[in-house]
Amino acid sequence: MEVKTQHGADYSAAHLGSLLSLMQYEYTFAGLGNRKVPGKVFLKEALQLTGAEISYNCFPPGAAMPFSHQHREHEEIYLFLSGQGEFMVNDALFAIAEGSVLRVSTGGIRAYRNTGTDDLRFIVLQVKQDSLQQGTIDDGIRIPGQVAWPVVLQTA
Amino acid sequence: MEVKTQHGADYSAAHLGSLLSLMQYEYTFAGLGNRKVPGKVFLKEALQLTGAEISYNCFPPGAAMPFSHQHREHEEIYLFLSGQGEFMVNDALFAIAEGSVLRVSTGGIRAYRNTGTDDLRFIVLQVKQDSLQQGTIDDGIRIPGQVAWPVVLQTA
Repeated sequence: MEVKTQHGADYSAAHLGSLLSLMQYEYTFAGLGNRKVPGKVFLKEALQLTGAEISYNCFPPGAAMPFSHQHREHEEIYLFLSGQGEFMVNDALFAIAEGSVLRVSTGGIRAYRNTGTDDLRFIVLQVKQDSLQQGTIDDGIRIPGQVAWPVVLQTA
Repeated sequence: MEVKTQHGADYSAAHLGSLLSLMQYEYTFAGLGNRKVPGKVFLKEALQLTGAEISYNCFPPGAAMPFSHQHREHEEIYLFLSGQGEFMVNDALFAIAEGSVLRVSTGGIRAYRNTGTDDLRFIVLQVKQDSLQQGTIDDGIRIPGQVAWPVVLQTA
């Protein structure tokens, strides 16, 4: 299935629908002999992202990464939304569940698997390691006065 | 409440617990007269992030941003997990719900509000705009052979 998007000056919006239905998306891994992986959708292109790659993922019960991997330049961050699993970084193994968030540096050898009886749903971010050193509150510019809410909704 | 963390070579892990209980976290905005905001937790420090700021957020029914804002250098990305709301970028207004993901460029004037009867739960990312131009699949390095799963779980 294709992701629904809206674009305009200064924004892009994507609408994935219910996060319980991520298995309807399918990603084709060109580097793995065009292996088709259901339950994975990348958003960098759909959202015209310039500072991150984002994917939404669903591992059914019993699913596990078939290989471990490192990264060249990108810090990777995993945000777990539901389910139960295990996450490996080098020699360390963690229990992961709803609300677990993991940062892995470029050199960390990582893999993860669903060890529960429900779907393991998670978001994966790739960002350039060491690219964001300054404060993030200071990066904001507050607009004086009250919010000028537009009246008409954009239709998707 | 403090976030539980684990740290090691190449990783940090944070465990927020149930995403239905985000209101137990409270953030103090130094720039707004130390105003305390329940339902907001930043993770850059807890996770020792170097390429992104991440916050988890909960707006109860009726809650709205009291001001709009822009950014200086950071692309901002909003990932909505549950609830119903409206998101403004300049003159455009979108309906947002579970599975909505929005990118906003530095200059976009943005605000958002909960228009539903349940909590509006969402994740906000800040990343450096234009920092990630190359491919993200190519950034991965596959480790040959099967995954060497460690046997012992790290305790949090």
